[in-house]
Amino acid sequence: MKKHTASAKWEKGLKDGTGSVKTGNGAVESKYTYASRFGDSTSGTSPEELIGAAHAGCYSMFLSALMGNENITPEFIETTASVWLGEKDGAPLIQKIELRTEAKAEGLDEETFQQLAQKAKEGCPVSKALGAVPEITLQATLKK
Amino acid sequence: MKKHTASAKWEKGLKDGTGSVKTGNGAVESKYTYASRFGDSTSGTSPEELIGAAHAGCYSMFLSALMGNENITPEFIETTASVWLGEKDGAPLIQKIELRTEAKAEGLDEETFQQLAQKAKEGCPVSKALGAVPEITLQATLKK
Repeated sequence: MKKHTASAKWEKGLKDGTGSVKTGNGAVESKYTYASRFGDSTSGTSPEELIGAAHAGCYSMFLSALMGNENITPEFIETTASVWLGEKDGAPLIQKIELRTEAKAEGLDEETFQQLAQKAKEGCPVSKALGAVPEITLQATLKK
Repeated sequence: MKKHTASAKWEKGLKDGTGSVKTGNGAVESKYTYASRFGDSTSGTSPEELIGAAHAGCYSMFLSALMGNENITPEFIETTASVWLGEKDGAPLIQKIELRTEAKAEGLDEETFQQLAQKAKEGCPVSKALGAVPEITLQATLKK
């Protein structure tokens, strides 16, 4: 097993406090605040954006691996994850994750692509870890 | 509901390809590779580190909110998440997340702190989203 670490520090209260997140080697480092998570601030990140980055990153890499099993090397696989943070019974809840992927890969037909795209949604380890999210959708487009 | 977005692009094959992740506004932007995820490379990030950053970030903020409900403002709450990526039936699987939190908060006794720390582990929306991970552990320390 490989251990991946990250840390976060929050100072002071919920609405007037400030947070910072950092991955193990410092490749990722950012501020986050109540306003960047629940409000309109476009400065800093949020836990939900980081979930989206993890999911999009895992998905794109996994789909490349599945194509590799078919002896196909993709030119690129680009995935956007939209993570919807809502509420349930007065508590915050991640209600839906929408994956949209676009790929370009010579020698890959549309039907096989759609099958692999669906398989990557089910099999990528971050998808599995996020199995408790009520809804995860996928829209996959093969570029010509 | 608030929408949080991030994207990832993977180019070429699984082992020789390169990936990049980016959050909506670009606050977080990093490379990731097969070596940074499964190997020994310390350059770049990994989806599992990003899951850890999301979890640690959510947890620290949520615990501050729970302390606020008790009219306590923490000086800081610092949380490290270790995300263990292993395998099951030949496929990669996130098997365990270990949260370690340290907090300093005037007027908070040890028993209440431990209760709130546990409650934050159960209630923070990222914990809920990661409910399918086989094991999530917590070790909480109140600093004097």
